[in-house]
Amino acid sequence: MARDRTKLTEGEVQAFVQSHPGWALAGGMLKKTYGFADFRAAMAFVNRVADAAEAADHHPDIDIRYNNVTLALQTHDAAGLTARDTALAAQVERFA
Amino acid sequence: MARDRTKLTEGEVQAFVQSHPGWALAGGMLKKTYGFADFRAAMAFVNRVADAAEAADHHPDIDIRYNNVTLALQTHDAAGLTARDTALAAQVERFA
Repeated sequence: MARDRTKLTEGEVQAFVQSHPGWALAGGMLKKTYGFADFRAAMAFVNRVADAAEAADHHPDIDIRYNNVTLALQTHDAAGLTARDTALAAQVERFA
Repeated sequence: MARDRTKLTEGEVQAFVQSHPGWALAGGMLKKTYGFADFRAAMAFVNRVADAAEAADHHPDIDIRYNNVTLALQTHDAAGLTARDTALAAQVERFA
């Protein structure tokens, strides 16, 4: 199945950021840092994100700093942000 | 139990790096990037590292980039590198 490589407009990205607290545009990527009670809770979140990423075949950058997890999303084959990024970001919001 | 905060000497760090391919000193941390066949294999490694980190109560920074995982170790309460860092680094080598 061909992937949709249509880039989001600036307005669409801004609308997403404004309606999803903590998410921001940084270096062309959608980023958010999630804080947890401890490392174990952070890893539980990372594994849920990993399962969702595999299911979507869309993999965020994941940085683990003890109880903090930063996700960064971009659609590499579109060289920008697409609906695949905002869809995964909205999905992982429910895991935190 | 009190933790040993004795810093490794420069010679001890160099000896570790020279005897453990891929590990390097960068920004005061011991770092290595491991490559895997795919994201799933990378996550399996991350989870083994996470279990070892919890058991040792010593948590590396973990950066996941699809099939590549970068670990960075430092002993924060010693503000440097200690035997706890090289012990965990040597342990995770067996997981890759």
